[in-house]
Amino acid sequence: IQTLEMELEAIEKGGYDHFMMKEIMEQPRSVADCLRGRVIADQMHVKLGGIRHKMKDLMNANRIIIAACGTSWHAGLVAEYIIEEFTRIPVEVEYASEFRYRNPIIREDDVLIAISQSGETADTLAAIELAKSKGATILGVCNVVGSSIARSSDEGAYTHAGPEIGVASTKAFTAQLTVLTTMALMIAKEKQTLPEETLHKLLVDLESIPEKIAEALKCEEEIKKISEMYKDAQNFLYLGRGYNFPVALEGALKLKEISYIHAEGYPAAEMKHGPIALIDEEMPVAFIATKDSSYEKIVSNIQEVKARKGKVIAIVTKGDTLIPSMVDHAIEVPDVHEALMPMVSVIPLQLLSYYIAVLRGCDVDQPRNLAKSVTVE
Amino acid sequence: IQTLEMELEAIEKGGYDHFMMKEIMEQPRSVADCLRGRVIADQMHVKLGGIRHKMKDLMNANRIIIAACGTSWHAGLVAEYIIEEFTRIPVEVEYASEFRYRNPIIREDDVLIAISQSGETADTLAAIELAKSKGATILGVCNVVGSSIARSSDEGAYTHAGPEIGVASTKAFTAQLTVLTTMALMIAKEKQTLPEETLHKLLVDLESIPEKIAEALKCEEEIKKISEMYKDAQNFLYLGRGYNFPVALEGALKLKEISYIHAEGYPAAEMKHGPIALIDEEMPVAFIATKDSSYEKIVSNIQEVKARKGKVIAIVTKGDTLIPSMVDHAIEVPDVHEALMPMVSVIPLQLLSYYIAVLRGCDVDQPRNLAKSVTVE
Repeated sequence: IQTLEMELEAIEKGGYDHFMMKEIMEQPRSVADCLRGRVIADQMHVKLGGIRHKMKDLMNANRIIIAACGTSWHAGLVAEYIIEEFTRIPVEVEYASEFRYRNPIIREDDVLIAISQSGETADTLAAIELAKSKGATILGVCNVVGSSIARSSDEGAYTHAGPEIGVASTKAFTAQLTVLTTMALMIAKEKQTLPEETLHKLLVDLESIPEKIAEALKCEEEIKKISEMYKDAQNFLYLGRGYNFPVALEGALKLKEISYIHAEGYPAAEMKHGPIALIDEEMPVAFIATKDSSYEKIVSNIQEVKARKGKVIAIVTKGDTLIPSMVDHAIEVPDVHEALMPMVSVIPLQLLSYYIAVLRGCDVDQPRNLAKSVTVE
Repeated sequence: IQTLEMELEAIEKGGYDHFMMKEIMEQPRSVADCLRGRVIADQMHVKLGGIRHKMKDLMNANRIIIAACGTSWHAGLVAEYIIEEFTRIPVEVEYASEFRYRNPIIREDDVLIAISQSGETADTLAAIELAKSKGATILGVCNVVGSSIARSSDEGAYTHAGPEIGVASTKAFTAQLTVLTTMALMIAKEKQTLPEETLHKLLVDLESIPEKIAEALKCEEEIKKISEMYKDAQNFLYLGRGYNFPVALEGALKLKEISYIHAEGYPAAEMKHGPIALIDEEMPVAFIATKDSSYEKIVSNIQEVKARKGKVIAIVTKGDTLIPSMVDHAIEVPDVHEALMPMVSVIPLQLLSYYIAVLRGCDVDQPRNLAKSVTVE
């Protein structure tokens, strides 16, 4: 029986050594599944059927409050920037665990978006109950169909990423971003807060994300080599600006979770208010430095780190020659609208955490001390 | 001439080895200076003269946006909880460097509070200009009189902490919290969002902060001993909940800045969504675990860390016996209303970072790579 189970697990892993790797690799498909029927750029079609009855509340929301934990909280931070930029509705992102225990301001014309892969996160569920008691509209963004959060929400949208087994969330994150971006563009279309041309361009780019992720995944061999060089690092910093700032947090969290290296993410400009003191030749720094509106600023942040002899790994836009000439390692990802970049720029960071953890002999799928869904407080 | 300069510096340090220590020790006085004439509990007097012409805008604000960097950003996070709790005005805290480069939502009936010790922080100054261009009311909270931020603001309140020379901010932080708490209570009084009795109790407690800080400073010898034990740590975690969550961030930042130990702050409940994987017998964890509404929750977070053999240093309320029985080291601070606790609970963490840095032979007043005021981007 033992043998059979092992074989079954091997089949479930689809030929990969770990569920996490399988889940990283299947992101072109999981994001495509998530988009199916929801986005058709050429028809200017953008619709999440699951939230259609609450679209008016969403469009007229006084404020959108996003409550989540861990990786889902990072997806919420990206969504804050996207929703504010495209719909002009103020967004507040809250740690569910903090939100539920204070006496936060929640009005009847607020909309709470709860994000959770499992749909069972205890703190997020409690945040929903609190917001519900104040009369706010509740939308759930979950992966697991029929989960507690899905059932507690007024409406919601599933991420359709398929079961995620690895404890460190990967495909759930990109699928959450896909749903949240789709939601923002759906509101923008209805509220007409974006010029038609811009909306079309964004929908075209959103539709192309599965192939962009497939292209980004090609850095695997390069990441493997870099992982060899940094597997014994004691610490890591991850820095990004704008849409890529939450990607820095997410990249650091992945490394922490599965390799037990103390990695920390920061908005790059905050570096000089403290963390830069940590930088010396022992400190690898990962920059998410794709070509966007903060490109020049991140170039100078990279210079500051190099001037202090830090080792720099940079995620750059394909074809960029400036940053690769400045850093120790440059990993290319394909170009895409900056608001959608997190779905692509996170890919090399997922791979980096995976390979470093494997090289350190860590149990990638079941890291110590962590549970897949945190159903206790 | 050299000798004279050295003597002058010694005099300026008031008998201490470093400016930072002098500044930590003078907090009972600097907070008292900050409160003088502004708070008289028995007369129910609470007033910041510098913002009197904009009080109506503040009371009727649709939203308060706080923009800051570094330690000032941590003061802003505490203020978010205090202002929302006592005045029921929604508050959004932004990294100034992120805020200025995106296209944030700012309305004419929003109030932007800019916090900066030097009043010269480039990113915060740019955030002010952006908010001003959208018609928002600007209030400055600075230490340096006549600074650029003070001059760019519509109105504001000085922190009156006296010159801060040490690069790692200490007395500026407690003075910022004093001003922001005073502001919240001033709004609460005008808006009548607090029962008179509660307001009185809070004013009495606020008036007592200088003596509470003086009492908290008595842990110095104990902190020295603990510092000896942890001076060679490679990493540190700082955890807190509620009002003490930003104190965890601030404690970690202090250690990073001056001792170059990689310290990270987190809301304690987020630990199980990732950082708990880092915990083993090598990882010291500082809990800010005073008796407040999240006391029971933090007790269970401490248990989780102890179960994984982490070393725990806890800041506890005087007289608490439960947590001291569970942890490796307990540091007592005097009791005070939970909303005011950050001004007291941060004190042992300032001392801890100071002594660890001194024992490691670091230049406490001028840590590598850091400038006192960040006047460049």
